[in-house]
Amino acid sequence: MTSRGLLLKSFRKVNTQHKTCIGCLATTPSRHVQTGPEPATPRIVTEIPGPKSRQLIKELGKIQNVGAVHFFCDYDVSCGNYLVDVDGNVMLDLFTQISSLPLGYNHPAMIKAVTDPSNLSTFVNRPALGIYPPADWVGRLQAALLSVAPPKMHHVQTMACGACSVEHGMKAMFIKFMTERRGSATLTPEEMSSAKEGQPPGCPNLAVLSFNNSFHGRTMGCLGITHSKYIHKLDLPVPDWPVARFPELKYPLDDHVRENQEEERRCLAMVEELIDTWNRKGLPVAAVAVEPIQGEGGDNMASRDFFQGLRDITNKCGIGLLVDEVQTGCGATGLFWAHEHFRLSDTPDVVTFSKKMLTGGFFSKESFVPKDGFRVFNTWVGDPSKAALLEAVVNVIKGDNLLDRVKVTGQHLLNGLKQMQGKYPGLISKARGLGTHCAIDFKDAASRDKTIAKLRERGVHTGSCGAATLRLRPALILENKHVDIFMESFDRVLANMNK
Amino acid sequence: MTSRGLLLKSFRKVNTQHKTCIGCLATTPSRHVQTGPEPATPRIVTEIPGPKSRQLIKELGKIQNVGAVHFFCDYDVSCGNYLVDVDGNVMLDLFTQISSLPLGYNHPAMIKAVTDPSNLSTFVNRPALGIYPPADWVGRLQAALLSVAPPKMHHVQTMACGACSVEHGMKAMFIKFMTERRGSATLTPEEMSSAKEGQPPGCPNLAVLSFNNSFHGRTMGCLGITHSKYIHKLDLPVPDWPVARFPELKYPLDDHVRENQEEERRCLAMVEELIDTWNRKGLPVAAVAVEPIQGEGGDNMASRDFFQGLRDITNKCGIGLLVDEVQTGCGATGLFWAHEHFRLSDTPDVVTFSKKMLTGGFFSKESFVPKDGFRVFNTWVGDPSKAALLEAVVNVIKGDNLLDRVKVTGQHLLNGLKQMQGKYPGLISKARGLGTHCAIDFKDAASRDKTIAKLRERGVHTGSCGAATLRLRPALILENKHVDIFMESFDRVLANMNK
Repeated sequence: MTSRGLLLKSFRKVNTQHKTCIGCLATTPSRHVQTGPEPATPRIVTEIPGPKSRQLIKELGKIQNVGAVHFFCDYDVSCGNYLVDVDGNVMLDLFTQISSLPLGYNHPAMIKAVTDPSNLSTFVNRPALGIYPPADWVGRLQAALLSVAPPKMHHVQTMACGACSVEHGMKAMFIKFMTERRGSATLTPEEMSSAKEGQPPGCPNLAVLSFNNSFHGRTMGCLGITHSKYIHKLDLPVPDWPVARFPELKYPLDDHVRENQEEERRCLAMVEELIDTWNRKGLPVAAVAVEPIQGEGGDNMASRDFFQGLRDITNKCGIGLLVDEVQTGCGATGLFWAHEHFRLSDTPDVVTFSKKMLTGGFFSKESFVPKDGFRVFNTWVGDPSKAALLEAVVNVIKGDNLLDRVKVTGQHLLNGLKQMQGKYPGLISKARGLGTHCAIDFKDAASRDKTIAKLRERGVHTGSCGAATLRLRPALILENKHVDIFMESFDRVLANMNK
Repeated sequence: MTSRGLLLKSFRKVNTQHKTCIGCLATTPSRHVQTGPEPATPRIVTEIPGPKSRQLIKELGKIQNVGAVHFFCDYDVSCGNYLVDVDGNVMLDLFTQISSLPLGYNHPAMIKAVTDPSNLSTFVNRPALGIYPPADWVGRLQAALLSVAPPKMHHVQTMACGACSVEHGMKAMFIKFMTERRGSATLTPEEMSSAKEGQPPGCPNLAVLSFNNSFHGRTMGCLGITHSKYIHKLDLPVPDWPVARFPELKYPLDDHVRENQEEERRCLAMVEELIDTWNRKGLPVAAVAVEPIQGEGGDNMASRDFFQGLRDITNKCGIGLLVDEVQTGCGATGLFWAHEHFRLSDTPDVVTFSKKMLTGGFFSKESFVPKDGFRVFNTWVGDPSKAALLEAVVNVIKGDNLLDRVKVTGQHLLNGLKQMQGKYPGLISKARGLGTHCAIDFKDAASRDKTIAKLRERGVHTGSCGAATLRLRPALILENKHVDIFMESFDRVLANMNK
């Protein structure tokens, strides 16, 4: 029997023992779902991508571009923190589908949500949610979203994905900005006809200010506020909007307090200056968009003073502040929303989410909810079946105190990273993070990429971002024992790199 | 017992009799799914929205804007062509969630797809599909999408929704346009750095030409080619791109052959002229986007000569042709793709889909597939669970010969509409359509809106579009008997309107 066969056999045995196997309902029992317990360690049996993955990549390549495909996965037998590929390689997954799995693979609560008969019609009948919501929709919004809303936010709009969340979040801000400018004046026929044609005054020249190294998505509006990698925007006619500098902090933070404060002050001054300049040239800035931690751009962090400053400037200028929590939201920083760490004196105006939230969408202040229908709208405006899954996830996060676990595991992880950077000072630096949302920089991209490849050969799957950063995006169910497995491999790989 | 209670009791009795009730698996048997047979007729027991809907609208209104909400629905007991609202009103649904239900409500094949254990991990573990596709992904793409691809198209990219499909379809066309312009030249450092900043030459000034009354979605790029209603773009800084006139045909078509040919020639001449003008002013048109039938804009149709002319012009100019089949695709016109009716001598370059396809995405010619990874990309790039549902739908469409049924039912529907316009000539006109994708115009918006309201009071749910158009978007399972129910109500309502 092949090692893959053995692995499957052992998983299925586990299933039978635990009587959690859903496959018993199948007419053809060939595909079963693994529900636990997860493997004790990684186990690598082929190179990655292995022969089966390579064959599938070749076949998929006849249908679409496969330049981004790493390997094909067997999601039936992936479990907890462990991802299994089609060649039977079992990897500790610290990247979790680009940071989009809250509870790892095949969590019993998510299986229960899908197989619960009372959710069946939710999975079968996707409605045009903005016109014909299901009977349980208000309750679902309350249980899945409002129960974990950022402080003082009581309004939420679902969307299908992160990009649509940011696009419509920006639209809500443009609409608020112009509604305020219009004041008590009624809409003119000229505004209406020019809006249809896409011309001022109906479609005014407005901008959203963003930061260098930012990433907010890949549709046209989102690309106007995205500045992390050239490949995202090359050959595309994206909006030309102002870009401020995001603070480049020096590490260790304790040794560079004054320099970092000055850097953040410079960046904030640039924000104010840009708002002023663009207003004067007739292209008013209607909003500022920022990530609490810049993800794609290199896990760049700034202090709470910086974010408080940004909130103060936007309030002073009467423009909106959009905090994009697509990557940082849903608990990975140890608080449900990363911006809670900043203890802002006034909540952001719009907070976008997706990824681990399973549904896209955005929270907003009441004043940023459009007064008319059909303005923030599309056919589906989200998907109740994703909200059903999210409700199950939120219940697990609360019931299992996962935010507390993330704090403990995150501290263990960050301590380990700091220990490693002490041990390999020429190679890695700037260990940083909140909760398990951690990262560390390499001296260059080549050594970072080689480390990621070597880690994967040892069965630990991680991700990259920015120029030379390794990013860790585990699920919320990560435990210290998983950190130890990673850290042992990391130590060995770095030792070999240093040879 | 209330009428609603009676209705539910009768549905559940049906369930028990047919042994198709899924609720038997429930620990709490309070929610069951109705799987048939569908009700014989509509049945209205309250005003719409009824008291329960009104209460829920009030509650939802505390969370988000509810300006577009019609009523709340009970999707557990909705069945086939019949939508049941939370007040127990049973409506024949000829609008099907803005044209997004291929098989109506709770179709057994879709229930089977959700409850099939071999699909379970697909619903539980949503992957970052562009990096870690599931083992069955190639097979799924072949079964669900390539098996119904437009003629001569063998490449497909999934997306989460219609807007993202159009956004990324346009991106593929911009990339193709610039790649061809670049020719054998390698990318310059200036192109790379300027692309990150969103400036030329990396981000060139390019446009997509579209038509007045068009609708392609509500994200920023999509809004640049959308011109149907002012509310879509009011207050938003959308791209300023060229807009050609879409033919306004005179009906009956047979009586206006020459005029309509001239109208279409004028519109095509305008397309050529705009491409030329915009090229000369340094804002080259990289592509043309068009709907086979303009949906939101009023169900406006043009001849196959017009579309062939558009294909010829775009080919002559070396630019792409995007045919947006988000509303027209998936069989409602009697062919799987509406543009098949045009018998184009050369296939479109990009064909977008969503709605009844349950997953968004686009087909494209091989030359429009970007050569590099991460260009048409995002975290999820679609959802295998929606493709699993689509595979079930496609199997039903093929197995039950639904395209043939749509042709028969559509003919019956269009005949009925024509009969009605003969009977009420001052009130309605321009009965038109392909398959069951039909529409008819009213003398004004007020009489159209009143008719829709009166039809709903009689238990027939329809939709509107354009200035004064009633649009019919039934599921593919519509039968002549349903058409007869609609037509009888339509006749009575129109008779009363004429009084």
